[in-house]
This record gives sequence, C-alpha cells and structure tokens, in this order.
Amino acid sequence: MTIRALVFDVFGTVVDWRSSIIREGELLGRAKNLKVDWAAFADAWRAGYRPAMSRTAKGEWANIDTLHRGILNEILEKFSIRGLSEAEITHLNLAWHRLDAWPDVPAAMARLKTKFWIAPCSNGNIALGVDLARRNNLHWDAILGSDVAGDFKPKPRVYLAACDAFNLPPERCMMVAAHSRDLKAAASNGLRTGHIARVDEYGPNTGEAGPTVPVDVAGKDLADLADKLGC
Amino acid sequence: MTIRALVFDVFGTVVDWRSSIIREGELLGRAKNLKVDWAAFADAWRAGYRPAMSRTAKGEWANIDTLHRGILNEILEKFSIRGLSEAEITHLNLAWHRLDAWPDVPAAMARLKTKFWIAPCSNGNIALGVDLARRNNLHWDAILGSDVAGDFKPKPRVYLAACDAFNLPPERCMMVAAHSRDLKAAASNGLRTGHIARVDEYGPNTGEAGPTVPVDVAGKDLADLADKLGC
Repeated sequence: MTIRALVFDVFGTVVDWRSSIIREGELLGRAKNLKVDWAAFADAWRAGYRPAMSRTAKGEWANIDTLHRGILNEILEKFSIRGLSEAEITHLNLAWHRLDAWPDVPAAMARLKTKFWIAPCSNGNIALGVDLARRNNLHWDAILGSDVAGDFKPKPRVYLAACDAFNLPPERCMMVAAHSRDLKAAASNGLRTGHIARVDEYGPNTGEAGPTVPVDVAGKDLADLADKLGC
Repeated sequence: MTIRALVFDVFGTVVDWRSSIIREGELLGRAKNLKVDWAAFADAWRAGYRPAMSRTAKGEWANIDTLHRGILNEILEKFSIRGLSEAEITHLNLAWHRLDAWPDVPAAMARLKTKFWIAPCSNGNIALGVDLARRNNLHWDAILGSDVAGDFKPKPRVYLAACDAFNLPPERCMMVAAHSRDLKAAASNGLRTGHIARVDEYGPNTGEAGPTVPVDVAGKDLADLADKLGC
C-alpha cells in the first residue's frame, strides 16, 4: 500500500514554538517595561501543557486555547507579571497562533503537497491551525487533529479520526513528528511514521537528533524527509 | 461586529453537481454501452439525499459517501443498470468527489480569501471536500461541516461547530448558499447570510433566482457577492 496522506505534529515539528513565544514575551516586556526571563517563561508555559491535557482527558474536553489560558494564569503569577489588562492577556495567550515555522518548512511542505494530501494532526485547535497556516504560507488540504477527534494525542482516536477524514486506512497515512512518543502512538494505531530532527526545540541541542523508536523514514529536517519520500 | 469568516454550502452553491454527475454517467455509459437517461439518474441520486440524511439522523451517523452509496444501490436497480463490478460502482459513487465548480467560483473565492477566512460548511465529508478543492483550485482555510460536527445541516450544531472552529461568535460568520432553507437555518443560529443565485442548479431555470427569506446580502453569483462584500 502506498502512502497517500501525511499528517503532521505541529508544535516543535512544523513550528518553532520556543523562539516565537520568547519573541512575543520580549515584545510585551518592552511595551510594559517588564523584567522577565522569557525563555524560562516559554518553557514553563510549554511544561504545563501535558499535565493540562491529562486533566482535561479525565473530564470535560477543552481546546488548547483554553488550556493555554489556564496555564498562563498560573505562570503570570509565578513570574510576578502583574498589571496586564484582560485584552493584553488574551493577546498574549494567542501568541500560540503567531508561531513561526522552522525555516525549511514552507518550501518542503509545498513539495510534499505535490505528491501527498497534507494536514496537521495536532493537539492545536482548528482556529490555531488556520492562523499558523496563513502566517507561514502553509497550504493544508484540511485541518485535522484534536478538534476533529474531540480528544488529544496520544489517544488512538485522534490518529484514527485523521485517517478516517481522508477516507484512508491507517497504513496509507504517515504521521510526521519530531517526537518519538508521538510516532510510537501513531505506529501502534497502524500509521506509517516519519521522524524529523528538531535538535534545538527546547533550546540548543535539546531536541531528538533522531528517533528512539523504529520508524519508516527519518530526515534531518522536512526538506530531507521530502527528498527521502521522493518529492 | 464585522464579518471575519465565510462558510459555504457546496453542492449547488460552489459546485454544479448535476452537470458533473451527468458527465460521469455518460462516461460510464460509453464505456459499458449503457442506455440511460443520465439527467434523470442524476436527479434521482440527488433526490435520495435528504431522505437518507433524515434516516441517518434518527440512528447511527454515516458520512455522505456512505449515504450516496446506499442511494446508488437503489437507483442502479431502478435504472436497470446491471453488470458493474464493485470497483466500477465504487468509482461511480465517488463521482461526487469529481464535481466541477461553477465557472465564477475559483477566481471569486480567491478574492474572498484576501478578506475572510473561508471554509465549506457542507454535508459532504472532509475527504470529499479535499478532492473538490484540489480539482477546482479552491484554497480553503479549513474543511468544516458535517464531519466536524458529526451531524448534518440544517441541525444547529453543524453551523455552530463551524463558528466554534474559527473561535468566532456566529454573528461574525456568514453562511453563503444558493438555498434559502440553508440560510434560514443559519440565520436562526445567529449567523449572517449571503445568497447567490444558481438558476440552473436542477436544469435550466430551476434554481432560486433570489432568496425567499431575509438575508444580509444577495449576489447574482459568487463574483457579484465578492463585489458586494468589498473584495
């Protein structure tokens, strides 16, 4: 069976969330004269993400904008950031809609689209996917992932709902991610897997230089993956 | 509140389903030496669609490809079309993925995209939306509608799930359709409404020349609507 669709993790794989959140923090810091370690702030915000998803999984489902806001309320306190208006906090929360793609992504994604259907399969919500696509010139065929499945990765239904949306069996879909954990879950649901290295995801030399689980293909970056997939 | 997103009915509004289904029937007829009134066949297929959705609404939800196949099985019998292989029937069923847009659509949609988020809000499934977009050079921001809502229009949740996907209140979304019934349902859920005339939808001079319910804007076609929305 040949691969017909590629579905992508977004945070860390397609976009460089950390540099973008630091940039947004610095913009706010200059405007409001705040002295904050924005790298630590970005890392704390991201670190709250998986626990927030886990809590949500046990109760009412909430999209990532809502989870990000809950974490943000806590870290504003922790970093002693006070005096922001509700509009300023809302704007900061939507920093996750203003993330920049890694530099190799827009051109490589356009190449991949000539051969495959392409969609995010992210824990980000649809509106976030739309904003990132417009900002970074990404031309997804559809926005899949948590909003379509009503749950978060690594739950099986998120991967399987993405395949279903394309009317494809899992073995004709490849999950592409910079995180072996995500790929392991995708593979266990029957999807093919492609790893790309994002070695600077959490700061210099912090990300996975290669997969720690068996994958179908691994690339240095998305351009290398596109080469290896014959695009 | 200004309009931020346009969501579109697809069958009849964006694509000319009838001419396309007739064309697909004629292709099959020539290949298999069938004598069939393909216009009547197309009309019968479409006529089965609303009853099939109503039946589905009362039980297990099924996507439109599945509903189309159930109707097709009945009308193959009714039109005495026999001797097709399973692969041929499957290919014919997916004729709904090979519909052509009305001629004004691709250019007008590109203009609308410069000012608004755009997405189908159709009873078609995501895979169908992807195929129609690729075929007709439509660059949706997302594919919304029945697959995202898990139900069919005119149920309120289908319209409201489309607004939610864009993180927008209904009054910042406009439903665009050639059918007053669809617009009436959208308006009753708080969406703004735009009508376009598709006078030849069911054959010459059969479609709505104008809305039969109050709407926010009405256009002769999508290009005229784009003019009236300031694009």
